[in-house]
Amino acid sequence: MPTHHKLSSSDDAALQEFFDFLRFASISSDPAYAGDMHMCVQWLKTRLEALPLHVEIWHNEGHPVLFASYMEAGPNQPTVLLYNHYDVQPVEPLEAWHSPPFTPEVRDGEVYARGAQDNKGQCFFVLQALRKLFKEHGKLPINFKWIIEGEEEIGSRHLPELLQSKQGLLAADYLLIVDVGVAGLDMPSVTLGVRGIVTMEMTLKGSSGDLHSGIHGGMVYNPLHAMVEMLASLRDANGRVTVPQFYDAVDHPPESLLADCTAQFSPERYARDFATTATGGEREFPPLARAWLRPTIEINGINGGYSGTGFKTVIPAVAIAKFSARLVPHQDPKTIAESIRAVLLARVPKGIDANITIFPGMGEAVRADPKSPLVQAFVKSYEHVFSKPCTCSLDGGSIPITAVLQRVSGGDVLLVGLGLPTDHIHAPNEHFGVERLNQGALMIAQGLLNLRREH
Amino acid sequence: MPTHHKLSSSDDAALQEFFDFLRFASISSDPAYAGDMHMCVQWLKTRLEALPLHVEIWHNEGHPVLFASYMEAGPNQPTVLLYNHYDVQPVEPLEAWHSPPFTPEVRDGEVYARGAQDNKGQCFFVLQALRKLFKEHGKLPINFKWIIEGEEEIGSRHLPELLQSKQGLLAADYLLIVDVGVAGLDMPSVTLGVRGIVTMEMTLKGSSGDLHSGIHGGMVYNPLHAMVEMLASLRDANGRVTVPQFYDAVDHPPESLLADCTAQFSPERYARDFATTATGGEREFPPLARAWLRPTIEINGINGGYSGTGFKTVIPAVAIAKFSARLVPHQDPKTIAESIRAVLLARVPKGIDANITIFPGMGEAVRADPKSPLVQAFVKSYEHVFSKPCTCSLDGGSIPITAVLQRVSGGDVLLVGLGLPTDHIHAPNEHFGVERLNQGALMIAQGLLNLRREH
Repeated sequence: MPTHHKLSSSDDAALQEFFDFLRFASISSDPAYAGDMHMCVQWLKTRLEALPLHVEIWHNEGHPVLFASYMEAGPNQPTVLLYNHYDVQPVEPLEAWHSPPFTPEVRDGEVYARGAQDNKGQCFFVLQALRKLFKEHGKLPINFKWIIEGEEEIGSRHLPELLQSKQGLLAADYLLIVDVGVAGLDMPSVTLGVRGIVTMEMTLKGSSGDLHSGIHGGMVYNPLHAMVEMLASLRDANGRVTVPQFYDAVDHPPESLLADCTAQFSPERYARDFATTATGGEREFPPLARAWLRPTIEINGINGGYSGTGFKTVIPAVAIAKFSARLVPHQDPKTIAESIRAVLLARVPKGIDANITIFPGMGEAVRADPKSPLVQAFVKSYEHVFSKPCTCSLDGGSIPITAVLQRVSGGDVLLVGLGLPTDHIHAPNEHFGVERLNQGALMIAQGLLNLRREH
Repeated sequence: MPTHHKLSSSDDAALQEFFDFLRFASISSDPAYAGDMHMCVQWLKTRLEALPLHVEIWHNEGHPVLFASYMEAGPNQPTVLLYNHYDVQPVEPLEAWHSPPFTPEVRDGEVYARGAQDNKGQCFFVLQALRKLFKEHGKLPINFKWIIEGEEEIGSRHLPELLQSKQGLLAADYLLIVDVGVAGLDMPSVTLGVRGIVTMEMTLKGSSGDLHSGIHGGMVYNPLHAMVEMLASLRDANGRVTVPQFYDAVDHPPESLLADCTAQFSPERYARDFATTATGGEREFPPLARAWLRPTIEINGINGGYSGTGFKTVIPAVAIAKFSARLVPHQDPKTIAESIRAVLLARVPKGIDANITIFPGMGEAVRADPKSPLVQAFVKSYEHVFSKPCTCSLDGGSIPITAVLQRVSGGDVLLVGLGLPTDHIHAPNEHFGVERLNQGALMIAQGLLNLRREH
């Protein structure tokens, strides 16, 4: 790799360029940041247009989508459709950040900023990989299509329809999702699957206004009581979800995969990284199996009543909760969401009004075929970059658009990336290693080279 | 009552004086308002000193306490110790107020402001009653002691010790707590008792930082799951508290009191006033019995994770809840609080750290003797003011200092006031009727006159 592309210190031009990318507060969930979203995609477009790529911005109701293509490798070479996103998660709680989320800075070799890993870091090293390939070979080894969307963090809600309308442009042999990671840089792996997702919100309303908890305590049904009772009822004492039909489509994980989960999980590393134990979820399965192979329901937020300084003897009029289910293959997100809504609505106590919203942007689970040439090419690439054996793993997270991209492209899927479990994505102090930007560029470039067919 | 003391419109001097009282943001729970607390008590002192009262401010670690006395009625007349407080509840959520909480205004004959009823309105009409008695009779009919404290809304946490040290000054035949209300102005009643209270806070900590709910969902124990499971476990399906020993000291309510509860509760009025039904608490008891005669645990606030616009797929590191128990006679607040803490600590799941705080300022329940001359004097006074029969009722709220005042004064207790269930105390848009200020002054003055012993 030429020196001028190698990131090494904070005065490096490429690192400064990466910082520029991170400075856009491209928070897709909040309409207040629409301007940042727009500037961010324009910034990306300018950079892609400097390469021999055909570049378009696709507009629809949602945030703009960047599409770039290179079809000069010819009909004998395969076509790869690569996916990234430029939108990021919200940044609350802001006070927990040690440096402002949109003012990137390097500490101990790590770049701290919202999106540093998820997904701007991993998008940026793809750009660096393309630059490297064009510089070293004057061309790309395969035909290449790149989609960089702006609604991943809100479930890619407008993208499926857009992809449908652009299906003619999206045909590919391989679909590469660059939005995941590895358990450790000493344990390289490619990711054969992600879980599906549905996100929901429940509002419980009791009285017309907040009430005094002495005068009314015991009389009115406290919405916070309804909230804890209803949400607690979703799981039994063994952590198993109690929603009828929830597990109907779920295959029992094969023993070989369960063994992999046990082998690849280190309780010591987990305790060190997160200061806790992996004691959640279904008791009967080992920890990684609960994240990779089993569906879950997680509560993502509850708010109601007074939680400030001191105490307020109030019965709130309203309580709110946000929660999500992660799904495995064959579970239909819409069916599951409706089942959860139905069981909750059936459990609303008298005196409480419930409103349950299912957010758009649900996604199905995805599993790759480990025998695909795509998987082989990237296993080899990781082994080349890290000089260690590369294993196959799964990821408990969700990239809802993956299943749609699979359908419209017709390509074999694989998920790759260099995220680490300690990167604090979706949390304060998200970070990504400067050196990983180089390793990522090398991993992508080498993987694409490995896919080239010899004549 | 002389015209110049009768409040009738917003340009009335006495109403403007009441507004001045309401403008002090005397929020006792937040140290930021210590200045307002201080100015408020000084303002009161100035007004009391204009009457033939001996006035002192008592200082200790807490907010200052105003004490006034009048012993000129002579040894043949009984002594009444009267209690009010000048501190108020916090005002959140501020956006729900239709006018700023500390900028009083009259709408449809009601004064809107934090504290308009609880307890500044009811304190102000006592002042008006004294002015009326001095003006019309040149003296008070009985010996009188008045304590106006500044920590009622935070459980009177420093007052017990102070009262102990001032016990010699506090001896009284009767103790009159002016901090309650009636079910409706067409249903006058005096209040024979209030519930005790303990307030608590629980913090549950999982991992060292917020985690991604996909990658970790099913692995880590989500503190919000622990929160809903632990809090839901405090009550069974019939609304009965499951804490061992919780009901041990609780007498089953006598049938006559249960019948009173049924007679005095109107489901239609409740539905009209609060837009809900009285479906909370223990199923086996009628609604008012659950507020007057039975103990409860109410959750007063829960906060954890993301509850803003959109969605955030996070497993929070920490979740917090505030909750309180209301107690009936013979339940010891400290014992109950420790029982709740113990049962919760026993239910903390592996992987979660729990910290449970019992706030100071707990209080025992109080019950008056219906045969006391004090009760008879005020029943007659209410009947005089409202020209309707006056009943005896109870109140589900708590005035923790009452039991302590009973002990140090040695007096028979009674609770009176003109609060209405629709006054929105402890909530946005608290209000109190202008006409009730007049009725309250008359009720207190007449009640004190009724206590005078004929020679």
